[in-house]
Parts: sequence; structure tokens; C-alpha cells
Amino acid sequence: MIESKVETYTAPGFLANGIHAGIKDGSRKDLALIFSKVPARAAGVFTKNSFKAAPVLLDMKRVKTGMAQAILINSGNANAATGEEGYKDALAMSKAASGELKIRDELVLVASTGIIGCKLPIKKIEAGLERLVGGLHVNGIPDAEEAIMTTDKFPKIALRKGNIGSKEVTICGIAKGAGMIEPNMATMLAFFMTDADIDLYTLNTVFKQSVDKSFNAITIDGCMSTNDTAVILANGLARNNPIKKPSRYLTVFKEMLFDVASYLAQSMVRDGEGATKFIEIVVEEAKSTGDAKKVAYKIANSNLVKTAFFGGDPNWGRIVAAAGSAGVLISTAAVRVYMEEIPVFAGECGIAGQKERLSEIMSKPDIKIKIKLGMGNKSFSIYTSDLSLDYIKINAHYHT
Amino acid sequence: MIESKVETYTAPGFLANGIHAGIKDGSRKDLALIFSKVPARAAGVFTKNSFKAAPVLLDMKRVKTGMAQAILINSGNANAATGEEGYKDALAMSKAASGELKIRDELVLVASTGIIGCKLPIKKIEAGLERLVGGLHVNGIPDAEEAIMTTDKFPKIALRKGNIGSKEVTICGIAKGAGMIEPNMATMLAFFMTDADIDLYTLNTVFKQSVDKSFNAITIDGCMSTNDTAVILANGLARNNPIKKPSRYLTVFKEMLFDVASYLAQSMVRDGEGATKFIEIVVEEAKSTGDAKKVAYKIANSNLVKTAFFGGDPNWGRIVAAAGSAGVLISTAAVRVYMEEIPVFAGECGIAGQKERLSEIMSKPDIKIKIKLGMGNKSFSIYTSDLSLDYIKINAHYHT
Repeated sequence: MIESKVETYTAPGFLANGIHAGIKDGSRKDLALIFSKVPARAAGVFTKNSFKAAPVLLDMKRVKTGMAQAILINSGNANAATGEEGYKDALAMSKAASGELKIRDELVLVASTGIIGCKLPIKKIEAGLERLVGGLHVNGIPDAEEAIMTTDKFPKIALRKGNIGSKEVTICGIAKGAGMIEPNMATMLAFFMTDADIDLYTLNTVFKQSVDKSFNAITIDGCMSTNDTAVILANGLARNNPIKKPSRYLTVFKEMLFDVASYLAQSMVRDGEGATKFIEIVVEEAKSTGDAKKVAYKIANSNLVKTAFFGGDPNWGRIVAAAGSAGVLISTAAVRVYMEEIPVFAGECGIAGQKERLSEIMSKPDIKIKIKLGMGNKSFSIYTSDLSLDYIKINAHYHT
Repeated sequence: MIESKVETYTAPGFLANGIHAGIKDGSRKDLALIFSKVPARAAGVFTKNSFKAAPVLLDMKRVKTGMAQAILINSGNANAATGEEGYKDALAMSKAASGELKIRDELVLVASTGIIGCKLPIKKIEAGLERLVGGLHVNGIPDAEEAIMTTDKFPKIALRKGNIGSKEVTICGIAKGAGMIEPNMATMLAFFMTDADIDLYTLNTVFKQSVDKSFNAITIDGCMSTNDTAVILANGLARNNPIKKPSRYLTVFKEMLFDVASYLAQSMVRDGEGATKFIEIVVEEAKSTGDAKKVAYKIANSNLVKTAFFGGDPNWGRIVAAAGSAGVLISTAAVRVYMEEIPVFAGECGIAGQKERLSEIMSKPDIKIKIKLGMGNKSFSIYTSDLSLDYIKINAHYHT
């Protein structure tokens, strides 16, 4: 069970902190640090956008070593589309942290989120480092979370404990992101801390799988960012029987990690810019997982479907039209569509009636739509939000 | 030159009419008829949505004969997702028209637009046919246009005359559509009438090319409808030297047809639901036309880009991020982005300055964005609109 409301989020052997360094206006926190007392095994998944922000380029290189000990993150500036100078700034960020923490520079990962195309205020970051490191504490994870938020309305933290053999193991995760959320992640940052002892190959594999089934299974606006980063640090301090593939320990760890990742990903959708509804779209009976995914995303990213949900209109016609335009071979006669348990479309034909029950479903904050394609046995589920007036207001006025 | 403001839209040998038959509420026109005095050569392009509406299925069959004489169109009901009964209703529509016009039923094409999934009120259509046919007149094209509109705010009619050898030839087109507009057309209906004498193979080829470069090069909301239909009737009454491929006559005809199609397509974008801006996105120096198209559509359909335009924000960062997520191999160092003539991004880096000139550009109703990929010599241009508060209002409340 996810512990998402505990007062004290801690992961054994990890310290964290978040401060206001002056990158954002006002007094909002904008600089976060996560630190493991000992070097940890590290794995990462990054944006597939061709234009990768400087910190992403640096991390992709460093995470290949499989080791890291600290993650320095700033909000308010994405250090994206900043060219060579931006890369130097990412390196300078890392140096400022490693110098203050007195660890090898290669053990520092960095991440940035915020506006694109403006030079990173590196002096402010450097000036804040002493205070940031000085304030590192075991209960600092919520401070770090606060400092990585941009348009987020609420913090996204989750923690799970479980037993690997006789040892208790903890996984704690924090994330930010409420827009530019799409397949292959988004302006999404997610950091996982665990004291599990797990070999590097297994960590890499299980982390990629968890990201695929969580962060890569949500969409808010179909936009993929230049800065997406998900990183996990495993410091081994739980001294559990080392997790190797395949084993019953791995099964436990995998389930725990997926729970945390999934909780964070769904929190991002619930916090989707302007979102008033949380919508699950389940595509079943597809010929391949790829087909199921295409249909699910086409529906989830359809502005007409999303505005219908905002309007509380059970407009299955738009769902069917979106499914039909996914570029997937569909036998139209076999397709059935359900809103919760109510069949609304079958045999190429809408099913009349049940208006009252449908209105009731549409008025709820959580709605589940199911499409059965009748072509095979593969399925895919994604989570999305509606498209509201507030989405437009937020994004028309989040200026460069 | 397009004659789009002439008082009298006529195409020699064509009659048309539009009436209120009671499908829509109030007294708005909802039933249109286009009739050629003699059987005409016919070509059509239809939606690629798997879920094709009944009238589309019927027309796709009939247009294969290469001949048609009448097109009966209703608005207010799409006769889509109506199954076998819907197909019977489409046939009944056609029968009502052919009976009243006293022509072979196979020469009638039908089209429907409006809400999805409700049974077509065929009785109302049948009851209106006598009045509709009785009122056919040479100046009836604007009436027909009025009767095919749904959320359109203004009529879309264009006419071009030109000389094929010594004979004057006319092409007149009408269209409807303001939302659900995407590649491979949209809730888009377009009907072209010409008195040109053109062989069927050439007509088919040139019509498909024109549609590809016009209606398939616009996007409003990335949604593809179940009812898209573009049809051309060429009745040959101009008695020009028959147009065959290849010839200088064909060149003239092709240019005329593209002008009319392009004018109508751009009118649809200008009338885009809630649109406040008309945006041209030009992708140049792509490796292939396919690549250029992918990048152009990814930018044009990005809600973040579209809301930035609505907000008047020269947010080239979102343009770059969208381009980078198109799934096309991009050499990021070679990419340059321009807003009108102003370079805003090059060498993986934003170009500062020119804020005043950029604000001025963004405040205009027509904006041109250019992205040079530096990978080859292929290009693609599309037209799109911004995403505004009104788009949401219109689509959240256009109920099933």
C-alpha cells in the first residue's frame, strides 16, 4: 500500500533539502538537492525529444556509469535551447554541488524545469549551494519536492515499504509536472530514492518497465518536453539479499516501484493544467499492444473528446471518431464502447437510452472509458484529463 | 484570381437550392441540392477514418462509376454510427432525390453533417424534396452553402474562371467546416462544380492532388471526422478542348482548381472554432516530404503552441519542443526557426532581442512561422488556427 499521506517522508540513508535561491520571483522554493550518504546505483529514463535540454544531455552521459550520489534540481528555468553555454551551466551546477558536498563531480546528476531559452542564472544557484547543503536533513524530501514544482498545484510524493527477505526496504518518490505531459514523459521530473540493494542491470530493467507503465501511460496535452527526467538512486543500505533477476525479491521490488511510480504519474494527471476530470481509457482486444496504444492515445489526445468531458457530455461519437482515425486497422463491426459499465456503441451503431445513468457518470470526477476492438487479446490503459477553459488560461499566459 | 465576393455564384449548367426541412431547430436551412442539367464526370475524396458514415460508404461506391448528376446534402445530423439502418437511410435520401429529379438513382450522391449517432430524420428529408427540387435555380449555390453549414460562422464559396483554349471555363466550390479539421480532411464537406470537359482519369488525379495540397494541408484541432467528403462534378458544357493529361489545358485547369480548393480550405481555418489567429507553418529543408509533414503537423497540433499564439506570446521554445517530438530524425544543430523574417532559434540556442518586433508580429491576425531543418530540400506548409477559450466553450457545449 502506498503511504502518500504520511507526515514524514524519509528514505534510509537519504538527505534532502529545498530552498529559494532567487531563480523564481517572490520567495517560492526553486532549488532542490537529494543526497545519498553513500554512492548509490543509478538508472535514468529521459525525454525522446530531439531537442534535449543541457541537464538531460549531461545526465544521460553520467547515468551510464551506473553510479550517482546527489541530484541537484532547479525550477524556474529549464536550461533548454541554451546551446553550448547551457551545457557549461549544467556542468557548473554539478560542480557547485560536488564542491560543497565534497564528492566526485561525476556522482552528481542535475535537472532543470521552467521556461525554455533563457540563460540559467548560474550565479544564483552557486550562491545558494552552501545554504542548500547546510540544510540537508532526513525529513527534507517535502522541501525538495516543493522546490521542483512549477505550475503544479499540489506536491507529488509517495512512499512504499516492503520486505525483501527479512529486511524492510523503502522506496520514496517525488515528481513534478502538470502540463506538456505525453508519451515518453513530459515536463516531468521524477526522482526515486531507495535503500534496496539491487544489481545495476536489474535496476535499469525494472526502472524502465515501471516508467513505461506509469509516466509513459499518461497524457495531458500530447506535448513532450525537452527536459523529461526520471532517475532512481538505490543505495543498498537496507542490506537486503541483493535483488537479481529473476527472483521473488525482484517481484516484490518491482511491485513496490510500480506502485510508487503509478501513484506519482496519476497525481500528475489529477493535477493536469486546468483538469476537472480524471479519465482512464482502456483499450482491449487489440491485435498488438502497439495498436492498443495508438488508439488509446488518439482518444486521450483528442481535443474534441477532452472538451466533451469538460462539458459533461457523454459524447461517445467523438470517442469512436477518434478511435477510427488512429491509423490502426479496425473491423468497425466488432468495436464496442463502454462508459463505465454502460455499452454505448456496438455493431457500428450507437446504443440509445440510459441517458440518466450516463449523465450521472459524466458528472463524476473519475470516469472510465473502455473500447473493445475485437481484433485480438492485447490491451493498453492510459490516464488523461479533460481540456478546460483553465488549461487555455494557464497556457496562454505562461509567458516566455 | 479567385472571385470570392461576387454577388452571383453560378457555374454553367448547374442549378442549386437550400431549404429548411426541419432537421435543425428554428428556421435555419438544413437541406441542400446541387444538380447538373446533364450527367457529369465525378471524382471524390473521402475520410480515412475507419468509422465511415453511411453517406460516405454509399458515395465511395457510386463515385467509382465516374458519373453523377446530383448531390443531396443535409446538415444537423451526420448519419454516422447509425449502422445498417443508417445505410438504408442514405439510400432513401438518394431515392427521394432521384425520384423527384427523375434521374437514375445511381447518379445521386449524398452527404450528411451534424451530430453523430442519432437516426437520420429521413421523413423530414423526403417531405422537403419536392420543395427543394421545385426551387432549384441558377443562383442557388449560396442557398446550398447556407444549408450545409453547422458551426460555421460564415459561408465558404469561391469561383474562378479561366480560358481553356478559346472557351471560358468556370469552377465554383462550396465548403463547410470549422472544427474536427485535420489531415485527411475533417468534418469537412466540399463540393465543386465545373463546366469543363475533362477526362475521368485526369479529373481523378488532379482532384486528389488539389485536395492533398489544400484540405489536407490544414488542421484546426487534429481531429478527423467520419463524414469528410470532397466531390467534383464536371459536366463538360463549356465544350472546351477536352482536358487530358498532360497538356497546357491541364495546367490551366489544375491551377484554377487548386486556387478554389485552397481558398476554401483557408476559409475553414479562418473560421476555425474559436480561432483568433491564422497561422502558416512552413517546414523547409527536410529530408523527405513525409518528414516535413510530420514536423508541421506536430507543431500545428500542439496545444501549447496554439495557446501561446492565442496569448500573443512569441514562445518559440514550444515550437522547437514540438518539432523535436515529431519522431523525425533531426540534427538539432542545423535547425533554425523564424517568426516572419525574424530568426528566433539557431545553433541549439534561442536568439535574444527583437522583443518589440516579435510582439508586433504576434499581435497580427496572420502569422507565418518557418522552420528550416537543414537536412535536405523537401518542404511542407500547413495552415492552422490558435486554441482559444471559445474553442472550449463551443466544443464543451455542442451536445450529443
